[in-house]
Amino acid sequence: MIKLIKSVRAMKKLSSGLRKKGCSIGFVPTMGYLHDGHISLVNEARKQNDAVVVSIFVNPSQFGPKEDLKKYPRNMKRDLALLSKAGVDIVFCPSTKEMYPEGYSTYIEVKGLSDKLCGASRPGHFKGVATVVAKLFNIVQPDTAYFGEKDYQQQVILRRMTADLNMDVKIVSMPTVREKSGLAMSSRNSYLSGDERSRAQVIGRSLKFAKTLINSGVKSSVKIKAAMSQLMNTSKLKIDYISICDPGTLDEKKVIKRKTLIAVAAYIGKTRLIDNIVIK
Amino acid sequence: MIKLIKSVRAMKKLSSGLRKKGCSIGFVPTMGYLHDGHISLVNEARKQNDAVVVSIFVNPSQFGPKEDLKKYPRNMKRDLALLSKAGVDIVFCPSTKEMYPEGYSTYIEVKGLSDKLCGASRPGHFKGVATVVAKLFNIVQPDTAYFGEKDYQQQVILRRMTADLNMDVKIVSMPTVREKSGLAMSSRNSYLSGDERSRAQVIGRSLKFAKTLINSGVKSSVKIKAAMSQLMNTSKLKIDYISICDPGTLDEKKVIKRKTLIAVAAYIGKTRLIDNIVIK
Repeated sequence: MIKLIKSVRAMKKLSSGLRKKGCSIGFVPTMGYLHDGHISLVNEARKQNDAVVVSIFVNPSQFGPKEDLKKYPRNMKRDLALLSKAGVDIVFCPSTKEMYPEGYSTYIEVKGLSDKLCGASRPGHFKGVATVVAKLFNIVQPDTAYFGEKDYQQQVILRRMTADLNMDVKIVSMPTVREKSGLAMSSRNSYLSGDERSRAQVIGRSLKFAKTLINSGVKSSVKIKAAMSQLMNTSKLKIDYISICDPGTLDEKKVIKRKTLIAVAAYIGKTRLIDNIVIK
Repeated sequence: MIKLIKSVRAMKKLSSGLRKKGCSIGFVPTMGYLHDGHISLVNEARKQNDAVVVSIFVNPSQFGPKEDLKKYPRNMKRDLALLSKAGVDIVFCPSTKEMYPEGYSTYIEVKGLSDKLCGASRPGHFKGVATVVAKLFNIVQPDTAYFGEKDYQQQVILRRMTADLNMDVKIVSMPTVREKSGLAMSSRNSYLSGDERSRAQVIGRSLKFAKTLINSGVKSSVKIKAAMSQLMNTSKLKIDYISICDPGTLDEKKVIKRKTLIAVAAYIGKTRLIDNIVIK
């Protein structure tokens, strides 16, 4: 029977109890409105741990003032059914007030990495992410936490944070789960109209195209970005960024060699979607 | 026999082992060059815990570029003898590289509280303090950590941080230890010449004077600050700030009522000293 926990105190007590019994805890932090990407993380956590905790918390501190905090999709009933089916033991779904009580003042920043890619167009976003994840780690006390590679920059930043702050949590990242059309699964896909959804497929296609170009010998980032832009323009996407960079430092590369991250953010109508691939 | 630990990994292992055995850990973070103030913290930690860990680490990230990082006094041999005598079990003294390896990027900020009092004249100071203390807490895994009230603002900020980040460390603060002359003990007192040391006594005297004025019915902060300034000017101190504020929020008070913190920072020659009292 899945346990639903709303208070920090109760969650801490439960986790401390599990750890004292020697149970390993796998943790999947989410903002809810779950899709197969989340479930793949849960399945991996289930395989590797004695207990699995999933958090559902739409974290205000990672949304900008003009972003989609209010309309972010929510469906707790459906989420709980999915998690129950996936064999999750505990769902932690605190209120905003429980996580950020009056007088809350502390923020964690991972300098450098947080200013690039999505950080450039979403100032403060990764500060909010780092802060809430540190809090959740301290509350849930996991041995291992699982993140999706669709949010590639996020897991790079969280690996840096846990190492820098000497936190005892192992970060595991899992491959992006895609629809048959190639569209990366995202809770925000629910914003898309039918037409937008088919136009959005071009993001995944542009990444595949980049890979094909690289495999055929094109090494210039400028050329690859131009080709990707051209392809995405056919579906009338507004490109936020195309980044061709080092997957560890997120520093832009002019010439492609060694392991490379190609990351894209683009607007389809008002919906901002991200996707990426790593070229080995 | 006191254990000297230099690596993060070894310290973590030791602490995890203690916690698994059910031993409570009391922790006193210091920058070394210990005095009776530090020892009073150690004594309290010794009373309340199964094991006592003291860290000695002159933390570069809490010093400004023009501050006294390089000349900050150090004497490991003397410190170890004092700690051994005080019954400390473990001394953690990592190198700077061990704490801030190449690529280090993560900083913790406690907004608002960190900009006032010492934060105003030492920008970035409390960010460095919060960051290193969070790291030390994650490494040493104490049940309780002990701080001196001389650094009043520091313990207010660290209480806020541990609560905000849901860290499982209890913060205990202990009264300022003073020399017979009333001078608050500080490692930085070692910078003072004989003449400066006697002039520095006026800081403690000015705080006592403020208390006398308040007890005699003076309630105006402006008047009390003026009287304190006048007194300190007799010893040719350069006042950095005199703050009369709420001990929880550090917000300035115009009129003294309820519990009040009176805090002073002043330069005697090139040496910046701080002191405070709390009026109930």
